[in-house]
Amino acid sequence: MEATLQPPVPEILKVSADSRPHSVAGAIAALLRSQGRVEVQAIGPAAVNQAVKALAIARGYLTEDGLDLSTQPAFVKLEVEQEERTAIKLGVYAYRLTDVQ
Amino acid sequence: MEATLQPPVPEILKVSADSRPHSVAGAIAALLRSQGRVEVQAIGPAAVNQAVKALAIARGYLTEDGLDLSTQPAFVKLEVEQEERTAIKLGVYAYRLTDVQ
Repeated sequence: MEATLQPPVPEILKVSADSRPHSVAGAIAALLRSQGRVEVQAIGPAAVNQAVKALAIARGYLTEDGLDLSTQPAFVKLEVEQEERTAIKLGVYAYRLTDVQ
Repeated sequence: MEATLQPPVPEILKVSADSRPHSVAGAIAALLRSQGRVEVQAIGPAAVNQAVKALAIARGYLTEDGLDLSTQPAFVKLEVEQEERTAIKLGVYAYRLTDVQ
């Protein structure tokens, strides 16, 4: 029986205006350590700001592991309470600091 | 006489709450095409949101050139009207889409 290779799907972290950036940063760092990537979703300016702050904090957490992160923002349509909203999704991936100069 | 190689310093784009994301995206894409990188600075949730939206839009502009961008957020202290404010800086760099699988 052949094994079917599925492309790994990143875990999704939903960040709101009330999310605590340090908690989100801890979750981002943990997922990047174990899986190498994560997707962060946020709707609205306050939530996007919390998400970006969390990523800046997570970079500090990852340094101890010799890792850093980089992110690619994109728009995504999400359904929230049966209404379609445009959210920001941040595809985040980790890399070893020794990989680059 | 020896030439002194200076590390290239990225251009800084300051984004405010009133910035138009499509205009900022055009400037980001132009600088990435010519210089390969740019730094985007924003103070406050509304400005950070405009900056992230601009980056998402700029990715679409760059696709035509076979380029994509990725960004690394960090905190930075800026002096605004003689007061120290914590801003978000987004280090942005371009890469060729053929560089990756």
